[in-house]
Amino acid sequence: MSNVKDPSLAATGRVKMSWARENMPVLARIAKRFAAEKAFKGHRIGMCLHLEAKTAVLAEDFLRSGAERVAITGSNPLSTQDDVAAALAETGVHVFAWRGVTPKDHASNIERVLDIGPDMLIDDGAELSIAAHQRGKAFVRNVIGACEETTTGVTRLKAMESEGKLDFPVIAVNDALTKYLFDSRYGTGQSGLEGVMRATNLLIAGRNIVIAGYGWVGRGVAERARGLGARVIVTEVNPVRALEALMEGYDVMPMDEAAKIGGLFITATGNIDIITARHMMKMPDKAILCNVGHFTVEVNVKDLEKIAVRKRQVRSEVTEYVLPGRKRLYLLSEGRLVNLAAADGHPAEVMDMSFADQMLSADYVKRNSKRLPHKVLKVPDEIDVQVAEERLSAFGRKIDRLTPSQEKYQRSWHG
Amino acid sequence: MSNVKDPSLAATGRVKMSWARENMPVLARIAKRFAAEKAFKGHRIGMCLHLEAKTAVLAEDFLRSGAERVAITGSNPLSTQDDVAAALAETGVHVFAWRGVTPKDHASNIERVLDIGPDMLIDDGAELSIAAHQRGKAFVRNVIGACEETTTGVTRLKAMESEGKLDFPVIAVNDALTKYLFDSRYGTGQSGLEGVMRATNLLIAGRNIVIAGYGWVGRGVAERARGLGARVIVTEVNPVRALEALMEGYDVMPMDEAAKIGGLFITATGNIDIITARHMMKMPDKAILCNVGHFTVEVNVKDLEKIAVRKRQVRSEVTEYVLPGRKRLYLLSEGRLVNLAAADGHPAEVMDMSFADQMLSADYVKRNSKRLPHKVLKVPDEIDVQVAEERLSAFGRKIDRLTPSQEKYQRSWHG
Amino acid sequence: MSNVKDPSLAATGRVKMSWARENMPVLARIAKRFAAEKAFKGHRIGMCLHLEAKTAVLAEDFLRSGAERVAITGSNPLSTQDDVAAALAETGVHVFAWRGVTPKDHASNIERVLDIGPDMLIDDGAELSIAAHQRGKAFVRNVIGACEETTTGVTRLKAMESEGKLDFPVIAVNDALTKYLFDSRYGTGQSGLEGVMRATNLLIAGRNIVIAGYGWVGRGVAERARGLGARVIVTEVNPVRALEALMEGYDVMPMDEAAKIGGLFITATGNIDIITARHMMKMPDKAILCNVGHFTVEVNVKDLEKIAVRKRQVRSEVTEYVLPGRKRLYLLSEGRLVNLAAADGHPAEVMDMSFADQMLSADYVKRNSKRLPHKVLKVPDEIDVQVAEERLSAFGRKIDRLTPSQEKYQRSWHG
Amino acid sequence: MSNVKDPSLAATGRVKMSWARENMPVLARIAKRFAAEKAFKGHRIGMCLHLEAKTAVLAEDFLRSGAERVAITGSNPLSTQDDVAAALAETGVHVFAWRGVTPKDHASNIERVLDIGPDMLIDDGAELSIAAHQRGKAFVRNVIGACEETTTGVTRLKAMESEGKLDFPVIAVNDALTKYLFDSRYGTGQSGLEGVMRATNLLIAGRNIVIAGYGWVGRGVAERARGLGARVIVTEVNPVRALEALMEGYDVMPMDEAAKIGGLFITATGNIDIITARHMMKMPDKAILCNVGHFTVEVNVKDLEKIAVRKRQVRSEVTEYVLPGRKRLYLLSEGRLVNLAAADGHPAEVMDMSFADQMLSADYVKRNSKRLPHKVLKVPDEIDVQVAEERLSAFGRKIDRLTPSQEKYQRSWHG
Repeated sequence: MSNVKDPSLAATGRVKMSWARENMPVLARIAKRFAAEKAFKGHRIGMCLHLEAKTAVLAEDFLRSGAERVAITGSNPLSTQDDVAAALAETGVHVFAWRGVTPKDHASNIERVLDIGPDMLIDDGAELSIAAHQRGKAFVRNVIGACEETTTGVTRLKAMESEGKLDFPVIAVNDALTKYLFDSRYGTGQSGLEGVMRATNLLIAGRNIVIAGYGWVGRGVAERARGLGARVIVTEVNPVRALEALMEGYDVMPMDEAAKIGGLFITATGNIDIITARHMMKMPDKAILCNVGHFTVEVNVKDLEKIAVRKRQVRSEVTEYVLPGRKRLYLLSEGRLVNLAAADGHPAEVMDMSFADQMLSADYVKRNSKRLPHKVLKVPDEIDVQVAEERLSAFGRKIDRLTPSQEKYQRSWHG
Repeated sequence: MSNVKDPSLAATGRVKMSWARENMPVLARIAKRFAAEKAFKGHRIGMCLHLEAKTAVLAEDFLRSGAERVAITGSNPLSTQDDVAAALAETGVHVFAWRGVTPKDHASNIERVLDIGPDMLIDDGAELSIAAHQRGKAFVRNVIGACEETTTGVTRLKAMESEGKLDFPVIAVNDALTKYLFDSRYGTGQSGLEGVMRATNLLIAGRNIVIAGYGWVGRGVAERARGLGARVIVTEVNPVRALEALMEGYDVMPMDEAAKIGGLFITATGNIDIITARHMMKMPDKAILCNVGHFTVEVNVKDLEKIAVRKRQVRSEVTEYVLPGRKRLYLLSEGRLVNLAAADGHPAEVMDMSFADQMLSADYVKRNSKRLPHKVLKVPDEIDVQVAEERLSAFGRKIDRLTPSQEKYQRSWHG
Repeated sequence: MSNVKDPSLAATGRVKMSWARENMPVLARIAKRFAAEKAFKGHRIGMCLHLEAKTAVLAEDFLRSGAERVAITGSNPLSTQDDVAAALAETGVHVFAWRGVTPKDHASNIERVLDIGPDMLIDDGAELSIAAHQRGKAFVRNVIGACEETTTGVTRLKAMESEGKLDFPVIAVNDALTKYLFDSRYGTGQSGLEGVMRATNLLIAGRNIVIAGYGWVGRGVAERARGLGARVIVTEVNPVRALEALMEGYDVMPMDEAAKIGGLFITATGNIDIITARHMMKMPDKAILCNVGHFTVEVNVKDLEKIAVRKRQVRSEVTEYVLPGRKRLYLLSEGRLVNLAAADGHPAEVMDMSFADQMLSADYVKRNSKRLPHKVLKVPDEIDVQVAEERLSAFGRKIDRLTPSQEKYQRSWHG
Repeated sequence: MSNVKDPSLAATGRVKMSWARENMPVLARIAKRFAAEKAFKGHRIGMCLHLEAKTAVLAEDFLRSGAERVAITGSNPLSTQDDVAAALAETGVHVFAWRGVTPKDHASNIERVLDIGPDMLIDDGAELSIAAHQRGKAFVRNVIGACEETTTGVTRLKAMESEGKLDFPVIAVNDALTKYLFDSRYGTGQSGLEGVMRATNLLIAGRNIVIAGYGWVGRGVAERARGLGARVIVTEVNPVRALEALMEGYDVMPMDEAAKIGGLFITATGNIDIITARHMMKMPDKAILCNVGHFTVEVNVKDLEKIAVRKRQVRSEVTEYVLPGRKRLYLLSEGRLVNLAAADGHPAEVMDMSFADQMLSADYVKRNSKRLPHKVLKVPDEIDVQVAEERLSAFGRKIDRLTPSQEKYQRSWHG
């Protein structure tokens, strides 16, 4: 009942999963408890996530925790690792994913996941949730709730909510402190730069790096780019964020100015048309373009295709576009998430937290399904505290506790 | 009607005010408009703020904007600059403040400010607000609202609100993005370290610096301490913040551990008894203790006085305490805010924003006094955006704007 | 006359070489001039360098510059890229190298290179130079000089010189400012950390990283590790360097202490037995060990094999060793240079400078062979200045020049 | 026999000296030994150094170590602290120094120092050495040697040596690793920025800071400026240094370009006319100019005086110059060393090392006076090692030692 590229790749996939599992101790502790309780007994879980080793561990953990069925597809054509998909399929999870899936096949895979009739969705970019709504009221009625992993997905689901079109509760896992403060910032920060280095083997130090967007992803990428010796330029539309970037020592200017001097452009806005033909025309020779935002819409690849006189693959994740006048621009991983396409995605420790949030949020949905409104809801504070404490403990760290007199002082207002 | 140390100091105070004014262009632009409109005509404004040059500019700007009366006292015994107080008194503002005020005189000065019968309060640490409430319902009825500058004050006022004892609206100016993201972080970050350097003339690089609290102040101080070459250790009670500190590359441990290896301790928690006799006994010889939190309660100075066998002043802001066994501990500025006691407080540019927030919030209170509930209220978003935009412009920076299609994309949820 | 793993891999090797060539503009400019002059006409050049794309460009450039013969072998069993070796063999360079070569085959490959009777050596680790001396006086007499790329090689050749056993001049290319200030520091700094990230997919932020050795490589690695969010601990034997590390904000302690708290150990000393069984026994569970020093001697792998109760491959570049008591240690790339074994080695821009130094130094040897003493000689200053100026120009940067009056002032001593 | 501003200031000077002494443990340990041995018995020591507390401790230590006479003058008109001078005069050292000395009085003070007939000179900027030579051969014959503290002084003395005009040995204390790696970099780095903050009370974060010169002082200042949140632009004439600055993530450009965008200019080149009228005309309104190089020649103050239409003092260390068109430029401390004029100079810990180098070098001169050539000589390696080891120990740090087998490996060249 799975559809993967090549089942014979399972052996290397299993080794990857084993490594990921070893390095996600917080999730492991929670999953162990849930497995003992058969916490998801009787539930059918549909998942749409970047399908690499850490995700596979989460999917298998749902199965081990008693779920009746677990089905999964990838959330990006280039982020699926075929060996991991093969290994996961062997565990009994239904896998519909392969690297390089076409948009049409991707849509079809989403439907295959929904075909198991999931009552819970673990989603990335709101793809499953939206497709489920498109199947109509009857279908959606069986869904007790969803957990959404990304900023982009949360934004879309809130738009649905505000139009009165959201028909089940969604936990905005993305908005858990232990998710967005770490995953977006430290996860994408590290893996985004790793992706660029792997794709290009070029020096980060001394390079002008233009980062579009100074949200959590943008600031993570900016910090790591500077940590590797780059001179960072930030573009923003929000004046408070722009000021913060300036205070952190980054240069701040509009993209039309930055385009003239950038050596590497990284988009992290969640919006469209951040880099268009107008900007590309202004860039210096050999400028590199890539994206760490969720959808492949930030660098306008169509524009690039249109203005280029020829293109060729110059490294496995680098396409060279030659513009009139012989200027060369390099596009990484076709404008897709470079940290997933050219590297292995977030480090295990950050996914350990994000997926612990996912699993605890799914459990929360399950236990409270009757009471939850059909809204985008925040992750309960206790989940954040629990995940943070266990992660600190996994790092071997202890912290202080408030004394009773300090707690009392904090509540008081007398001089 | 003023009470200052020495009116003859006014000349140097005026030069300081002139310099501050020149470097607060955002406030200047707003004040110019308000002066033209006589925006605060008929109002009596009571202020309690650290009285140095930037604050004096704000007070004078209220007067120039038509206020019937403006009275001010300092909010910390060591933060008042006597020359500035003298210069400000000459402008017509009623000033009740001098450096080294006793607690009793400070309480009395608070009352002198209230004696003008203010209908608006500009407060720091909620001192005026609390004293006003203690005068009773009749007095408070005339107050249309207050603006509160600090985290500590907001915490106290929210405690009052939750007990149903807050009798006028308070704008939590502290919680404006353009205030707390900048003032607490970059303002105290820079001035706190400057205070330590001025007080000690010792090297920051290579030193183990223990920072208690990883709120906005703590993270600002941590960033600057590291930027000056220190090895930073963070203590926290909140596990999410502790994890963030760890991810930023700081060491994290309980104070009992940190006490053994710290060379400089900086408290930034807003709570009491962060460093007590128990910790002091564990510290290495020549450890330095100081505070950048609002009240002088974080380092337990009474404990230090009790366990010390003798003390002496070794530099103008450094007291040496000798403990049994000849270990020496150095306390800076008597445990008071070291950035104000040993340096000149926040740089002008951050106060430019904070005071622009103050003035715009006061105007907002004035225009909406009838409609506002008796609660701690957030600063309206428009004020944040306006201040950020003007500050960017003062820095000579431009940023991008969303295009119509980007705005539309942001609102949409279709794939 | 070549011996490579698989000639059919040449196509991907050619693409890699083309990318490297595009990103080494300084070398390209020099090579273009030398090709026009047929600068190395009549010379036979023996090379021993890490054989990946950038090296292949250098080798081909020697051939294009008129060299009668060019023969090359790799300098590390895991650093040879077979596709590049295949592509290089097609250009006419004699290639004797493949990934995973045994020590015996490596020694044999060295001899194959010497079999062409080179009169000039381009060396890495002094391997060709030492082997040439072992062939005896008659053989060495034909060698007009060598250029040595590494700190390790220079140290060995100076030891030979001080024993009166060096029989031809050696240019210490490693000691050119434009080599060691950049290649060791920024090259290994970036690629070393990239190697760790690729090998492990683990988070650098928040990790205790122990760096053994604070020479140029060590400080490059330390800076990048901190830039990625790690807490860095340095071990050293030189007190001045140790102090510098401390001033930069790193922790400094003996390895016996560091062993207890490190999460990742990176050796960069050029010496043996930096991490031995004694240290391994003290390490925490899941500690990772790797090396960026030249030879595979810094982590004592034999010790690890001896104390482990079992081992297995857990990712392609990660071997798990289980110690008595179930503690796991992870060794990356068998203790070999992790930046070359698990990543693509130095970024193109730093090799651009190092190889420009190589080519200009080889030219200098050729033009001055009669005059040079049989010593380890420094690269002439003009070469450094020329390479730095061209590299700045490739980065699109201009700098100031001394005015005549400034030059005069600099030479003067009158008050 | 002393000439100071006001002997009655001695009490505060004594407290400052006591604090400095407490924080210079390395010097203290050496001085204790020398005092016991009366190491400088029979010698007369002439000193010219920035006269603040740390220097005063060194001078008194020479006296305590048996010197027959010690005479001292300041090396910069604004760096002398009058209270310290008064306190030092009480110890028996002959002091000829006061803040704000005129060039003529400074020259005269130099002569007063020489009047004691010193046989050893402790010099800063080569002022005593040059004046001694100007007194003629007979005078110089009695000088057994000098120790020079600064880069500038060493440069001047080497110029004398190369013209064959140096008539006694000079130890280039400046070139000791434990001096220039720490004093210039970390000392001036910290105190230079502290000086700017104290002088201006402006925000460093977000500011464009232009640093002229990327020698040790320049890189120290650049690192600290960035650490405080600035965006740093470096100007250089040396292409290798310019490349290093670029690799460290700084922007690099000629001063004519930097002048247009800088908000704060700090000169650190040791040369003249770094900032001239041509640059001043290009600067933005409110740009700040200051200097951390030795002599007051880097910012051309005469040019500024000439092009300004008026000037006034706006803070104690800030002069405002108004240019035609109402543009304002702010000059700090009249273009003199801002770290000494507006702050307290280097932190005690770095002077601890520099002055330990001074005292050990003076001892070395004394013990080897007969054997030393009349040249600028380097500090013996043993002194560097000794000072570094004692400083590490003062910081409470231990390091590794080479094992015998590691020492042997290091000397070997066999494979």
